[in-house]
Order: sequence, then structure tokens, then C-alpha cells
Amino acid sequence: MDSKLLAGDAATANVVLGIHGGTTSLAVARSTEEAEAVRAVLTQALKAGKARLDAGHNSLDAVEAAIRIMEDSPLLNAGKGAVFTKDGRNELDASVMVGDTLQAGAVASVTIVRNPITAARAVMEKSPHVLLIGRGAEVFATQQNLELVDPAYFWTKDRWEEIQRVWEKESKSRTAPGARSSISPESADAQGTGPFGTVGAVALDARGTLAAGTSTGGLTGKAFGRIGDSPIIGAGTYADNRTVAVSCTGQGEFFIRLNVAHEISSRMRYGGQSVQDAVAGTIHEDLTTLGGRGAAIALDRHGTFVTDYNTPGLFRGWITTDGSVVVRLYSEQN
Amino acid sequence: MDSKLLAGDAATANVVLGIHGGTTSLAVARSTEEAEAVRAVLTQALKAGKARLDAGHNSLDAVEAAIRIMEDSPLLNAGKGAVFTKDGRNELDASVMVGDTLQAGAVASVTIVRNPITAARAVMEKSPHVLLIGRGAEVFATQQNLELVDPAYFWTKDRWEEIQRVWEKESKSRTAPGARSSISPESADAQGTGPFGTVGAVALDARGTLAAGTSTGGLTGKAFGRIGDSPIIGAGTYADNRTVAVSCTGQGEFFIRLNVAHEISSRMRYGGQSVQDAVAGTIHEDLTTLGGRGAAIALDRHGTFVTDYNTPGLFRGWITTDGSVVVRLYSEQN
Repeated sequence: MDSKLLAGDAATANVVLGIHGGTTSLAVARSTEEAEAVRAVLTQALKAGKARLDAGHNSLDAVEAAIRIMEDSPLLNAGKGAVFTKDGRNELDASVMVGDTLQAGAVASVTIVRNPITAARAVMEKSPHVLLIGRGAEVFATQQNLELVDPAYFWTKDRWEEIQRVWEKESKSRTAPGARSSISPESADAQGTGPFGTVGAVALDARGTLAAGTSTGGLTGKAFGRIGDSPIIGAGTYADNRTVAVSCTGQGEFFIRLNVAHEISSRMRYGGQSVQDAVAGTIHEDLTTLGGRGAAIALDRHGTFVTDYNTPGLFRGWITTDGSVVVRLYSEQN
Repeated sequence: MDSKLLAGDAATANVVLGIHGGTTSLAVARSTEEAEAVRAVLTQALKAGKARLDAGHNSLDAVEAAIRIMEDSPLLNAGKGAVFTKDGRNELDASVMVGDTLQAGAVASVTIVRNPITAARAVMEKSPHVLLIGRGAEVFATQQNLELVDPAYFWTKDRWEEIQRVWEKESKSRTAPGARSSISPESADAQGTGPFGTVGAVALDARGTLAAGTSTGGLTGKAFGRIGDSPIIGAGTYADNRTVAVSCTGQGEFFIRLNVAHEISSRMRYGGQSVQDAVAGTIHEDLTTLGGRGAAIALDRHGTFVTDYNTPGLFRGWITTDGSVVVRLYSEQN
């Protein structure tokens, strides 16, 4: 196996906030400008989250602040800049979890909520439920006075051109016998049209409470109300003060089948594995064996942060107690 | 704690199929007629699943056959006889998983598919996805030529009277300050209006493959597109040939937060726990500590079957390799 496909970031100590901006199917940036723009967004998200912690807010506040900035950026597949579904819509999913109470909240297939991560948090804090979907989630968000937008807000030129290419390819393949009626996770990724997946964050506050959050626009060309791992507690997101906070990105179907986020926690809780071994084992043993691709970032209760992925690249970064920022987009070196 | 609240069924060997028909908030049947009717449905489901296995079909076939019978019964909260949402609809969720390939499929909030468990299986076998929701899942089911019904098919008098009572109570409480805009899992259960939860099945076939499935009508009076644990792989359903097949029922929010089905598997895989200890620990330590109520049934790869619950009753049953059937509704004794 290409050693580049096994490159995660070694454990870093004293991290208070770690984030990802999705895996990439390319091993290098398409342009220096693009790389610099992504770096700037990730850096801004890290600093915004850290500022919340420095002001005495909790880890959930830091996670939400960091993810809102990534959702608002048109460069990443969450919030503004989300990919389009097969019928040309932006359907957004998000989830959050806190590690002290194991409280969690999530929304799926929302189309008019500017910041799905804030809606997920509202479900956790203001409803007796964990997961609300579609129109029901939107009614709830409206009742909670969250910021609503016209669905056109999420439109970006790059994503729109991406779905045009999918439609064109589908229209050609429709003449072929046995053509699939839906985009598979594999084919969507194989198009190599830039960052694919989600954004996410994990944080640890001064009280020792872990939090995790994930937000996504899903899969380009997804059909049939397909839900991936991002709004699924245990698949894309998990946080437990006894072990770890995790956010994942990649081919959601595999992450659901393996319960990747909860699996990492279980390897630590019952297997006595370190956060680094738990993440590496889940990604490079379980996920790779099953044929899935993606990444996880994880922060344990001691502030040790690791990332791992079996894709060419992962947009990610972290910030330590003293404010040192590291942002990496592709290999460990850049 | 009342010892009755800790009563599960001790491990039984040589089981090929185990099922549940939901927890109950009552410790005894409301009538002998009701108890006998439920016993008859569970017995029929067990025999139908066993017949599939005896005919050489796999564990997934057995799970599907058993669950279809429970879905078709108006007595249980799945398929026909499902509870009503806050706006007077029947929205159904289901999931399946097989333990050899870790393939899984699920549907949520479907309203026109007669047997949601069959739709969940179709998602697993005929789509590249794991979880499809709402209208999208219904379009997919239609394309797969599954049996569709008018939503009125799911209507039953008992369930309709139940939602009337919820509406009446809501209408009264609306005058109270700080009234909640949604039914909480606690309040719905506390009404004590009969079986609450879901149906589910776990099976082991001659090839040693485990399968699990779960199907539900959700929570009486649920609002906002609320999704519980039944369609969530790892929460309500999990199967892994290395460990166990699990189906859960109860207050779904707690089962999602704890990833109950996957947790039981993890305790066995990494903690070396027996299926009995894994189920008891998850239900009586994790779930009870968090304040949640419900049940899990589990079948390990050696054919050892256990149930556990922290509710007054659980409709459940199992059938062994030689065709012996046990059905229990409340305590271990009856």
C-alpha cells in the first residue's frame, strides 16, 4: 500500500481544539490560491474556537464556533458551499455531543437553516429528542428563532458545476444496461472534484469536558433522502469524557456500518488502547478492510489529539493551550 | 431497586431465532385475551422465521419473516398498529444488518410501505446507501416494487384513541406556563397505554451468520420528524459475526446516545464479556445510570440468547434448533 495512504498526524499534546474540513481525493492542491484560502478558513475557525475557550466558555461553544465558520465558508462542503443532491438541492446534516452528560443532538436534510450545527445544538438543548429530520427539523429551528435563509444562499458556482457534470455523466450512462439509479459513494468520490465529506471539530475545556460536532452537505448527487454518518451519533460524531471526542468524514455508509466514532471510544474504554492506536486501528484495519475511505480526528480527555485517514488528503488543524496553530491539507509535510 | 426491574432471561443455548415485541410500561396484561393474542403473534413469528431457516434460508430471511408477521399484527407498534405522530400520521422506521459482511440498510419516516423491514433490506441489497428517509425512501421502495399501501392501512382504533388522549392532554397543558412543544420520551411512556417501542429479531443460520432487524412506529405523539434508535445502525440494531446480533427497544434517545447495540458488541469484542454480561452491563449500568428505560435482545455466534430490560415488561420469545418455543410477556414466570 502507498505509504501516503497511511499518513495520519502523530499524537500532539495539550490540544484544546482540533478540526477537519473533509477528506480530499487529490493528494495536492489544485492551486496555491485554493490551498491558501482553505488554510485561512481553518486557521480562523481554530482561533474563533480558542477565543471562546479563553473567554471561559465550554468545549461545546468552541466546537460550535469553529464549525459555524467552516459552514459559512463556500470552500467547504457544509453550510454555504454544500454539494447538490441529485435533484439540485442542498440538504444539510449536522450533529453535536458532549462528553460529561452524553447529551447529543442532530438534524438531517435541512434546507433553510443557515448553520445546521446550531440547529443540532438546539435539538440537544431545547427538545427532548436527539435526531430531527427534514421539514420537522426546520419547523423546530424556526420555533427556536435560529437564522433561516433562502435555499439559494447555499448555492456556489463550483458545486453547481459539479452537479452538472454528474447529471451529464448520468444522462450518458442511462443508455447503458444495468445503470444504477443513484450515485454510489465510490463514484462520487472517484470524480475527484475537490474536498468531499464534511467539517468537524473536537474540543476539551478547562472543566475537562469533551465535545464533538460534525456538519455536512453530504454526497454530490445523492438521491432518495440519503443520510450519511454526519448526523448519526456514534457513526460521525461521539464524545465521552471517559474516553475521547471524535468527528469523522468520508464514505458515510462505511462509517455507519462500523460505528466509527463509537468504535474508537470502545477500543479505548474496553480495549485499553491509546487514542492513537484506537483511531489507527479503526481507520486502517476496520475501515480499510471493509473497503471504505475516510478520516477521523480525535481528542482524548488528556488533550492528546490525533488524526488518521486512508485518503490522499485531509484538511485539518489544531490549536494548543498556548495558542499554537497547525494546519495541514495533504501529507504531513504541508 | 425493585428486583422485578432487573429481570432478564438467563442465557439459553441453541437458539436460532429470538424476537421482541416492545417493552411495556405495565407489569401485567390488561386482560387475558390481550396476553393470549400477543402470545399467538409472537409464536407465529418465531415459527415463520424458523421455517425459513429449516428450508435452508439465511438468518436475514428468518429475521425478515418474523418481523413481517409482527409488523402485520395490529397489536404491536410496527407496521399496522403503529402509533400516531403529533399530527396524526403513522411514520415508520426499520433497519437490518448482517454479521458476515457488516452490510446494513434502514428507512425512516416512511408512510406508505406496508413492511418497512423489507424496505430496509432493499436499501441494503439494492442501493449503495445505508439510510434513506421520508419521501426519498418511499420513491426508492416504489422503484423496488415493494408493496405499498394507503396510509389509512396503518390505522387502528386503539392507537387512534391513544393519540386523542395525548392531544387532549396537550390542549389542557397549553394553558400552563412553560408547556413543552413536544412529547418527551418520558411522558409518552408514563401514560402507560400499552406496549411501547418496537419489534425486533435476531437470528443465526447454519452457516454461522448472524442477522438483526428492528421495526417501529416510534413514539405516540412524536413531532418534528423525530427519529428514534430503530433505524440507526449501532443504536437499535447491530450484527457482527465476531460477537453478537442485537435488537433494542425503549426510549430511543438514550439508545442513540449510548449506541446500545454497538456497545454490547464492543463489550464482547474488546472487553471479553459474555453476551449475558454485555447486555446486563449496558442495560443496568449504562442505560439505567443515564436515566433511560428499555430492553435489548441478543444472540451470540454460539447460539446463546439473552434478553434484559429495566422496564416492567418486555414481549419476547425464542426458538431453539429443535423447535422448542418460549414466549414471555412480563416477568420471567409468565
